[in-house]
This record gives sequence, C-alpha cells and structure tokens, in this order.
Amino acid sequence: MHLVAVDWGTSSLRGALLDETGEVLREQSHPRGILSIPPGGFADVFESLFAEWMRPEGTRCIISGMAGSQQGWIEAPYCACPAGLDEVARSIIDIQPGRIALLPGLRDEHSGVPDVMRGEEVQIFGAMALTGLRDGLFVLPGTHNKWARAKGGRVEGFRTFMTGEFYALLSQHSILARTLDADAPLDEAAFLQGVTQTHNREGLLHNAFGARTLALFNRMPKSQLSSYLSGLLIGEELRTQSLQTTSEVVLIGSAALTQRYALALGAAGVLTRTLGAEATWAGLHALANTQGRRTS
Amino acid sequence: MHLVAVDWGTSSLRGALLDETGEVLREQSHPRGILSIPPGGFADVFESLFAEWMRPEGTRCIISGMAGSQQGWIEAPYCACPAGLDEVARSIIDIQPGRIALLPGLRDEHSGVPDVMRGEEVQIFGAMALTGLRDGLFVLPGTHNKWARAKGGRVEGFRTFMTGEFYALLSQHSILARTLDADAPLDEAAFLQGVTQTHNREGLLHNAFGARTLALFNRMPKSQLSSYLSGLLIGEELRTQSLQTTSEVVLIGSAALTQRYALALGAAGVLTRTLGAEATWAGLHALANTQGRRTS
Repeated sequence: MHLVAVDWGTSSLRGALLDETGEVLREQSHPRGILSIPPGGFADVFESLFAEWMRPEGTRCIISGMAGSQQGWIEAPYCACPAGLDEVARSIIDIQPGRIALLPGLRDEHSGVPDVMRGEEVQIFGAMALTGLRDGLFVLPGTHNKWARAKGGRVEGFRTFMTGEFYALLSQHSILARTLDADAPLDEAAFLQGVTQTHNREGLLHNAFGARTLALFNRMPKSQLSSYLSGLLIGEELRTQSLQTTSEVVLIGSAALTQRYALALGAAGVLTRTLGAEATWAGLHALANTQGRRTS
Repeated sequence: MHLVAVDWGTSSLRGALLDETGEVLREQSHPRGILSIPPGGFADVFESLFAEWMRPEGTRCIISGMAGSQQGWIEAPYCACPAGLDEVARSIIDIQPGRIALLPGLRDEHSGVPDVMRGEEVQIFGAMALTGLRDGLFVLPGTHNKWARAKGGRVEGFRTFMTGEFYALLSQHSILARTLDADAPLDEAAFLQGVTQTHNREGLLHNAFGARTLALFNRMPKSQLSSYLSGLLIGEELRTQSLQTTSEVVLIGSAALTQRYALALGAAGVLTRTLGAEATWAGLHALANTQGRRTS
C-alpha cells in the first residue's frame, strides 16, 4: 500500500507519494503554508492537493510540521525528549482514523526554558534510517536552526538557534543593510574570516558592528560583507557547542545552507555528511511503519 | 566669553549656551539630525538655529557628533586611541576659523577590525571633568552602546555593542514581535531573569528563542516578555566584559537606559554612578578650553 507523506510548514507545503519500501514515486510542493490557510480550511486544501494520491482504498497519509501547531489543522501536543520513533508514534493524532494522521513535534526542557521543534524530528529519524547512525549530532540549518543530540536512535535533547532569522534582520533592517548586498553569492574567504572573528569571544553584539566599520573604512568590498556577516553568525552558533568531543556531524537541509555549515565545521576540524529532502520522506516512512506496527 | 556647544547627531540636534565656567545658560533641541539636512544645507540650518546665541562678537561654537561624519557638514577624520583632550583638540576641524569648530570622533583598532565613536568621547571627557575620575570604565547605552576604558584622562580603547539596535530589530521585526509588547514598562524581575539566563553561555542566538517558547507555553505574560528580552541582550553584553576586576562603572545616557544597566551591573556586584546630558556640555566646554589654550 502506498503512503502519502506531507511536510506542512509555516510558509510552504511539500508532499511525496511513497511505495511500501519508502521509495519516492512522485513529489509536489506548493506555497500553501499554514499561514495561508483560512480557519477551518485545512481539509479542503488537503483534498484539493492530495485526493488523487489518496484514491486507492486503504491509502494512508502522515503529516509533519507546523500543521500540528496551535495555528494548524489540529493541535498535536509536543512529545517530550528523549524521544524515538516509538515515543513519537504513540503521540500521533488521528485526523481521519486509518486515513490521515498528524505528528506531534518535540519538546526539550533545559535551564527552565522550553525548546521546541516541529518537522525537524522527522528529518532526524529519516537521517538515522538513511545513514544507519543511531548516535551523534544532527544539525538542521534554517530560519530557526536545530542542533540535536541522538543516542540509541532517540533524540536526547536539542537547542534552537535563530541564526537564519538574525541574518535576515541584520542584512535587511539594520544599519548594516546600507552597506551590504544580501543577495551577493557566497565568498568563502570572507565567510571564514567572519567565523574566525568570533574566536575573540566578544560576542555577536560587538562583532556585528565590525561589518559596518569594515565598510566605512573600505576594508572589505560590498560584495563580501554578506558572507562575512553570515560567518559571524554561524561562527557564534558553533562557539556555543562542545565540538572538541565531536568528530562528525550530520547536516540536513538545503545545499545553500548546509554548504556554509560544512565550511565552518570543517575549519573546526569536524567532518560532515549532508542530507536533503530525502531525510523527510525516509522519516515519515519510518514513523508510518512504526505506527502501523502499533495499531496492527 | 560664551560658548555655543552643539551635539549634532544622526536623528536629532541639541545645543547649549555656556558661560565661561561651563554653566548652562540656555538649551534647545530639534529633530534636525544630519539625515534631515539637504546636501550643502548645514550652514543655513546652523544659522537659523544659533544666530542669536552667536551674535556677541567673538562667541565661539564647538560641534560634536555625526556632523563630522562622511554624511555630515565637513568630514573630520577619526582621532586614534589612546586619546585625551589634547589629542582630540589637535584634530579639531575649523569650519569658520575662530567661530565654528567641528570635533573628530575616536577610532580604536583591535583584532584587525576598526571600531568608531562620534560624540560619545565628548561625554566621556565631560564625565571625567564632572566626577574627577581619570581612570575607569565608562558605559554609554544607546542604539550602538560604547564601553570605553580610560587611563590617566585618556580613552585607551573601546568597544561598540549593537544592543539597542538588536532590541529594536527583535521586538519589532522578528517572530518575537508577535507575542511581546515592545512598549510595556520595565518589569525588573523579568529583566533580571533575562540577565541570569545568559549565564548558561549558550549565546543570544539560542536564548532569544526562549522569549518565543516562554510565550508559547504561557510561562511568562506578554507584559513581561520585552523586559526579559532586554535582560537577555544586556546580559549578553555584560558577559563579554571582564567585570571581575571592575568595582565601579560610570553610566552616561538617558535615565530609561542607564537604569537597566545599573540593575544588571548591580546584580553582578558592580557599583554604578549615572550622568546625563550634563556630561556632553562639560565635555564640549573642556575641549573648547583645551583648544583655546593651544591657539592662544
């Protein structure tokens, strides 16, 4: 029986039709993130996009991402860490029993402040399935990056970093926006110069101002400043990690972002391997199978 | 002979008429920062605002701030640190010799990236004159905060922190803007909770996300979140300072901002004393006297 796998995020929606082995038969993506769906409109949008794939009797669908948030289709409360496939499968919400199921996100409580993810946990489980790794550090760059530690196939805990959003804020809305070109292509040397600059431990609030003064004194061309700023941000993020004890990191995300993390981690002597969208489909396949075993 | 002291900044302009002892006789302020002045229009704006004060024969004016920047009246190149009254007075630019003089800013080069200030150095010299301190740490909160170390009456070096601008970006343009009230009054307990949170050393990129999740889980009321975010930012700034060796800090700035630094520094066991606009006038008076001695 086929599986319809859906990653329904804030600003976009992606779907894949998988066969019983998890192989991707067809894919589609739409700018129909949850923020674009009117209240009560999720079922109609779902059927308009996936009715054909769902037609064969007994086809099931599993959905991850922000569709399970307070602003989504139905709220699926977060599952507490540590959590593996079994813990997450036990928290699945049935939207239409036996037909459409919705995944919870993960919650990690550390130093009194909760941390959350929705959708990234699926990519981590998928990366485990694809690589065979059940332990290690999984990094998912994006607007709100996630750094997750896994042990024995379960996500032990994780941290969110607003690195992508800070880059957008600084390059578009701050004083730095006047002198840098946010759309300039990656300049690896300027990027690594930014990463190295964070070793001064003076922090982002100070180092970011350097992207202004380097322009003011014509020490760095406009075309390199966005790469330098990106290096300052990713370097700051890496600085808070205990990478001395880490030999390899699994990166999951778009090529444009994972490339930068691979560069910065490489400069710190850490090996990386990179996965893309295939991790999402592998994770949704693994979770559907886990749920299937529980309910059969 | 009277002195017309002017602090001409990016978004506003303040002036004071001082007598020979430096006492303030009259003050005025206008929303006529350098960004509002058309090219070539500085002299006309100056005369329209200060002609009356300048009328007595021999009255001099001294101007500090962004009026000496590339976008200002005339560019006054930065004076290199360490710099005291003598070094700065030697770099003064005459706009109208014997009548209107323009101050340079300060430049500090550390770890290969230049740092700059324009106008804050005047406040530091003024604070030295008013307190009698010639050594110590002077902190000037604002959009771009300055932390300056003085020795023997000279500014040895300084660092800029974009703390005020980061607060505006995060509270107005980021995902945090959806759940916090940027105009809520200071909640001291929530502010200090934010300061304490930065002790986890996980950095601003992570800790800022906590202002989102605390709202998501209803752990902190909306009215406290802006104070918590402010504490995270100022705590992050303090974390990069070597405050163990500091017993007292001089704060110079508005009451609303210096109050927050006094709270955060107090929690770290550091005493503070606070000065406001009077530091600007005392600094301009001291610099005019220094220049007067040089040219007489």
